[in-house]
Amino acid sequence: MTDPADLGAVLARQDITDVLVAYCCHLDRMDLGALAALFTEDCAVVYGADPALTAHGRSHLEQSLARMWRWKRTAHHLSNVRITFTGPDSAESESYVHAWHETPDGRTATIFGRYLDTLVRTPEGWRISRRRMDMNGADQGFRVPIPPAPRAAPPPGWQPPQGLD
Amino acid sequence: MTDPADLGAVLARQDITDVLVAYCCHLDRMDLGALAALFTEDCAVVYGADPALTAHGRSHLEQSLARMWRWKRTAHHLSNVRITFTGPDSAESESYVHAWHETPDGRTATIFGRYLDTLVRTPEGWRISRRRMDMNGADQGFRVPIPPAPRAAPPPGWQPPQGLD
Amino acid sequence: MTDPADLGAVLARQDITDVLVAYCCHLDRMDLGALAALFTEDCAVVYGADPALTAHGRSHLEQSLARMWRWKRTAHHLSNVRITFTGPDSAESESYVHAWHETPDGRTATIFGRYLDTLVRTPEGWRISRRRMDMNGADQGFRVPIPPAPRAAPPPGWQPPQGLD
Repeated sequence: MTDPADLGAVLARQDITDVLVAYCCHLDRMDLGALAALFTEDCAVVYGADPALTAHGRSHLEQSLARMWRWKRTAHHLSNVRITFTGPDSAESESYVHAWHETPDGRTATIFGRYLDTLVRTPEGWRISRRRMDMNGADQGFRVPIPPAPRAAPPPGWQPPQGLD
Repeated sequence: MTDPADLGAVLARQDITDVLVAYCCHLDRMDLGALAALFTEDCAVVYGADPALTAHGRSHLEQSLARMWRWKRTAHHLSNVRITFTGPDSAESESYVHAWHETPDGRTATIFGRYLDTLVRTPEGWRISRRRMDMNGADQGFRVPIPPAPRAAPPPGWQPPQGLD
Repeated sequence: MTDPADLGAVLARQDITDVLVAYCCHLDRMDLGALAALFTEDCAVVYGADPALTAHGRSHLEQSLARMWRWKRTAHHLSNVRITFTGPDSAESESYVHAWHETPDGRTATIFGRYLDTLVRTPEGWRISRRRMDMNGADQGFRVPIPPAPRAAPPPGWQPPQGLD
């Protein structure tokens, strides 16, 4: 209960969560320099299979995310953060993002996404070295080709319940 | 400030939060075995008064939640986790869930719900022994009979303010 | 790694987060007495420039928020909590709120807001001494004059990417 390693893990989880949250905040501010600094220099970021949704390296990521200016406003709300340490200085995380976007002409697009990340502890702090995105769903206004998250199929013969909407 | 009990409480809160988040993630994946394992064997789970929304025991819960396959996709985003310890190995928690559901024909249903839980620490870790659900609200697409959360009524004579939408 | 100050900061962050979450929960319950007790007696709270959206002092805040009864139901989901300590007993925080509101006639209004807070540690615990609100965006149903959050403009000559919605 009083193992010093426990406190170290608590602090590391807080630091990692802070990085994931800062990503969202910097993106909504379009502070792309601060955002890119949350990643390693050699990061690999894949929001989807389309080359326009992929970036290799911090600098490419910063340039690539300039595409977010096609939205007039965005709001990225993070939740469901799950962290697994894979070594003293490495971790994997899964988190959910509720991301709302508005176009200049007032259309909106909402996605219920997941960030699947590998993080490493560097002298500057925890940084994201690999990010992959998929999504649980999206409203009809969202048409960016983010891949679907996996979902188990029903067992053979499953029938929907009666009387429930 | 350096009471070892403090660190123990921090770790327990983290473990409990992890259980609540894992529930959401397993549900969206429809990994009902992993989901049921977050509950005690003798759990009581009441999403609403309708018998179809109630489960007694881990195995019943797993079978019962197969109803979620009537949705094509779902996204459960947890927030506002509040935990109160009621003993060294027991706790109560309240949390908010923003749950989005989509039907096979593309209709959507969103609920702003609350999970009201009792948790116990078992040799396997923290587990949910009782869960009750209610909701702050839902959009018009959501028609499952989840009970309303309580909300105080205005005092006698209260008048809405002028000039505010 | 085992600095006692680290555990103190972890506990303070938890306490501050609990205050921010309790605000949301008390607001949705319309327990305005409990809500006001989360603020200092001399608090300054500015949701927007309109005088109806400003309160000075705990008692004024409690009276002022009675305006929320014009909604039939609300749901305030907090996320993206960022905390910076400015002294042993003072902190600043930024957090995101996804706030859903429903009118008695069934219209809904959703805002993607930010709370920008100053907190102080008092003998009663951490309390909000100053709160300012702005927003990343809102749907068309939301017409309360909350100011916009800042967002950097694109560099000169920026062009939207081809082929992405």
